[in-house]
Amino acid sequence: MTEQANRYRDIGRLLLSCRDRPGIVAAITRFLYEFGANIIHSDQHTLDPFGGQFFIRIEFFLPDLERREEEIRRAFSPVADTFEATWRLSIAERKKRLAIFASRADHALLELLWRIRNGDLYADVRMVISNHTNLEPMVASFGIPFHHVPISSETRRQAEEREWELMGGEIDLIVLARYMQILSPQFLERYRNRIINIHHSFLPAFVGADPYGAAYERGVKLIGATAHYATEELDAGPIIEQDVMRVDHSYSVADMRRIGRYVERAVLARAVDWHLQDRIIVFQNKTIVFV
Amino acid sequence: MTEQANRYRDIGRLLLSCRDRPGIVAAITRFLYEFGANIIHSDQHTLDPFGGQFFIRIEFFLPDLERREEEIRRAFSPVADTFEATWRLSIAERKKRLAIFASRADHALLELLWRIRNGDLYADVRMVISNHTNLEPMVASFGIPFHHVPISSETRRQAEEREWELMGGEIDLIVLARYMQILSPQFLERYRNRIINIHHSFLPAFVGADPYGAAYERGVKLIGATAHYATEELDAGPIIEQDVMRVDHSYSVADMRRIGRYVERAVLARAVDWHLQDRIIVFQNKTIVFV
Amino acid sequence: MTEQANRYRDIGRLLLSCRDRPGIVAAITRFLYEFGANIIHSDQHTLDPFGGQFFIRIEFFLPDLERREEEIRRAFSPVADTFEATWRLSIAERKKRLAIFASRADHALLELLWRIRNGDLYADVRMVISNHTNLEPMVASFGIPFHHVPISSETRRQAEEREWELMGGEIDLIVLARYMQILSPQFLERYRNRIINIHHSFLPAFVGADPYGAAYERGVKLIGATAHYATEELDAGPIIEQDVMRVDHSYSVADMRRIGRYVERAVLARAVDWHLQDRIIVFQNKTIVFV
Amino acid sequence: MTEQANRYRDIGRLLLSCRDRPGIVAAITRFLYEFGANIIHSDQHTLDPFGGQFFIRIEFFLPDLERREEEIRRAFSPVADTFEATWRLSIAERKKRLAIFASRADHALLELLWRIRNGDLYADVRMVISNHTNLEPMVASFGIPFHHVPISSETRRQAEEREWELMGGEIDLIVLARYMQILSPQFLERYRNRIINIHHSFLPAFVGADPYGAAYERGVKLIGATAHYATEELDAGPIIEQDVMRVDHSYSVADMRRIGRYVERAVLARAVDWHLQDRIIVFQNKTIVFV
Repeated sequence: MTEQANRYRDIGRLLLSCRDRPGIVAAITRFLYEFGANIIHSDQHTLDPFGGQFFIRIEFFLPDLERREEEIRRAFSPVADTFEATWRLSIAERKKRLAIFASRADHALLELLWRIRNGDLYADVRMVISNHTNLEPMVASFGIPFHHVPISSETRRQAEEREWELMGGEIDLIVLARYMQILSPQFLERYRNRIINIHHSFLPAFVGADPYGAAYERGVKLIGATAHYATEELDAGPIIEQDVMRVDHSYSVADMRRIGRYVERAVLARAVDWHLQDRIIVFQNKTIVFV
Repeated sequence: MTEQANRYRDIGRLLLSCRDRPGIVAAITRFLYEFGANIIHSDQHTLDPFGGQFFIRIEFFLPDLERREEEIRRAFSPVADTFEATWRLSIAERKKRLAIFASRADHALLELLWRIRNGDLYADVRMVISNHTNLEPMVASFGIPFHHVPISSETRRQAEEREWELMGGEIDLIVLARYMQILSPQFLERYRNRIINIHHSFLPAFVGADPYGAAYERGVKLIGATAHYATEELDAGPIIEQDVMRVDHSYSVADMRRIGRYVERAVLARAVDWHLQDRIIVFQNKTIVFV
Repeated sequence: MTEQANRYRDIGRLLLSCRDRPGIVAAITRFLYEFGANIIHSDQHTLDPFGGQFFIRIEFFLPDLERREEEIRRAFSPVADTFEATWRLSIAERKKRLAIFASRADHALLELLWRIRNGDLYADVRMVISNHTNLEPMVASFGIPFHHVPISSETRRQAEEREWELMGGEIDLIVLARYMQILSPQFLERYRNRIINIHHSFLPAFVGADPYGAAYERGVKLIGATAHYATEELDAGPIIEQDVMRVDHSYSVADMRRIGRYVERAVLARAVDWHLQDRIIVFQNKTIVFV
Repeated sequence: MTEQANRYRDIGRLLLSCRDRPGIVAAITRFLYEFGANIIHSDQHTLDPFGGQFFIRIEFFLPDLERREEEIRRAFSPVADTFEATWRLSIAERKKRLAIFASRADHALLELLWRIRNGDLYADVRMVISNHTNLEPMVASFGIPFHHVPISSETRRQAEEREWELMGGEIDLIVLARYMQILSPQFLERYRNRIINIHHSFLPAFVGADPYGAAYERGVKLIGATAHYATEELDAGPIIEQDVMRVDHSYSVADMRRIGRYVERAVLARAVDWHLQDRIIVFQNKTIVFV
């Protein structure tokens, strides 16, 4: 067993959401206590303290967690029902399986692969899929399968079927690491809130193609990047993370594109990390991120 | 009743620390639930997940909190004793009473007064004490009592007695807003962890006098400020908050001093805010800040 | 003579723009040398190194500058004509005269007044004009004339005439310090590139009213502020400076408004400072800021 | 010819330092003009405007620069002598030759190699030297020679001789990318101001070994990294660049070490970039960095 796995050994994460009312936290913490769990972190949020939507994320330590998982699920279900809550339980040690989609640019992909290899991101990259071939050697040097799936406007449907087949229902999260193709509504729907995209502007500014060109034209003094869950409407999905970098009049569009890569890769990596650690709840096209 | 007070109406804050063991969170949350409280925020920290020191801050809403305060304290005491915990309960609506000590510089003082008047800091400034007189008109324009207590090396003892008399045991927090005098160990001890100082460097770099001069000499590319609880050892107390600003070769010592004021005032204001909101626990010369 | 004035004593600033071609810098620096000037700073920018527009800002020391000003202007004019350049010469010691327009909010105004009093901004505030009266005492405490000019949709024209009369052609720069009224195209035209506005979003995101409300709705993770020269098209003038602050799901619209004031005041103060120091050239709805 | 080389084609950089006096800029710019050069950027700095040390960096375009290099040097020498100036002329297109020294950690090295491959750093990495072998495959995947030079306290002298032999007088810059060995004074002297080291703290705080451990003990709220030229006195050389990241009470030493890598690699890359672009002048153990 690796050191990484040990860090997450016997750690569970419970995420729950329901209408707010007194007693929810008491009920959950009592439940966990009676199972022998020790709470390590607890974060909560209420949209309106008086009757709004309530969200909680609890990280706990429970010996033999994996063996007892089903037992816990069965026992917790009626507790959650009392509050008409939606919830999920996640085993921290169980690595999420990733498919990373890329095109020609390597920076976002390399950053993810490096962080995963170093254990800063805890994930199992099952494959990289690209509509180009130039990244194959780099991906191979990490020992990860690379699949070339070329796409044209005529072959979009077949390409998505091919991608679907490659993933084989075994993928927990798709990361679009500067993947320059549009996904179909059907594809997006099947992976709702499980596809993270990086857009190279501080949304909602500069939606769509060539945001650096648009930023240059407007003469902004900051350029940014936004990681969000991909939805049918382009660049309009729930925002997970954003950051910016300072530019000035001396930056050409090419300069912005060049330095923008550094903020893109950092923002995407943070968003992926939070998803992998079950820190994100999506509610009404916004994210609650417990960090 | 003002809008500000309403925001804090019937909000309580419970801070507790003890050796970690399972069941603490369950016991506290059950206690609060049985009293009819609704938990709004909850943060916790454990120094070592397996048997280390445990810290928790819970913010809760409980109708009629002030009237029921004593009842809660009496009832909670045996619960806390079970865990051999130290704890405090704070009524959010009850403004903390401040004495601000200043010398000649106005920036840190003005920032605090402005934030308090705007309701960004929730406090009751009872007095400003200074060893100079130049700030009197500004303080007066805020309607706050100003006391001039001159200090020389011979009169330090009497000056501190005068300050003591002015405060009259009615002050919850002393803020040293660029107060350029050393306080005696006796004075510091009486207000242990209740005196916040702003030092104009990123500690532990540049302890002592003239940190900007020392920063200039070393040729650093960042200058900083540190808010900390004052202790007997100079600039060595528990750090609450720090921040930095970028400088380059073109900055003279005077330039650093000038721009440094902006980071000093921001860092001090954040530290004071966290203290006022009972977000800070001091443990072994370090702070746990629940933000 | 104050210390501030001494800092700027005998300092001149020459800003010039023309089509790029070899020899411009040599001609200007030779001209200054022959007049006995010593160049202190020099910044330049070319939109396209091969034949694009060229911009330069030179700061120089020349004994007896004010007395020799006209002589220099006359002598430099034919030099500039050789390059078909537009140019301006500014005497650093000569304080620019400001009119600050405000409404109810005090933060941006107070920041400017405080920085001016401390010498961090080098300007002469001739008056504060407001369509409300609440800020009068604060302005008075700085010893600055306050004029109340109420505005309604029917009286806009007369109000602007009144403002015009108050300023009497003696104002170099108008700062809109969260002034919540629209200025007429005629007014804006008369002060083209001499009216600085602070908008409470990172433009071009959230143009128009209630940007914090819109930011909340979209679920952004950064809020920002933008200082720009006011033009006829709302929030579309040349951007001078922008900055952002981090927010998360726990921020209400009111929270964003509250913390947003800190980034607004900082961004506005930097933009005003750069204008006062003749660091800004406007070209095709963008700014070149030499810092 | 690659796109990168084109960007630097016929671009020269002149760095000069002398006692300040009027006429220096005029003399240099006139010299360049008469050679047919067009000035692209010009930055200058004076330690004290009245008779202090003067520094200037001029970037210029001159057709056929490489062919005319010697001619320019010969012609400029008497001009510089007039001012008793020290100076250097650099041909931008000529890639600096790098040796990167590393130990076990890969992050700083990988960042440099990636930026060089992408053209964000313009350099020719001639070799990577390490006292360990684990980084060999990664270095090989970039097509760069890797040399394993083991070091113990007994073999330090021989190891340095071996390194010297490997570099063969053909290296312009040595980068210590988290190289965990001390270099001898003789070694350092031979590469004075041409060895860049990255130290994992914001110097002068936490000099020496285990800065993250020391930062944890002191309870700081920011951790940092410092790139500096290596000198005989440990961690005391001229600082080139520094940056920080926010931490809080929840960070263990291991967490600090983990996230610290991100600020280390960014700070080192910026410092190396500035050296490669001849933006740095060292004067009295401080750097003037023209950016």
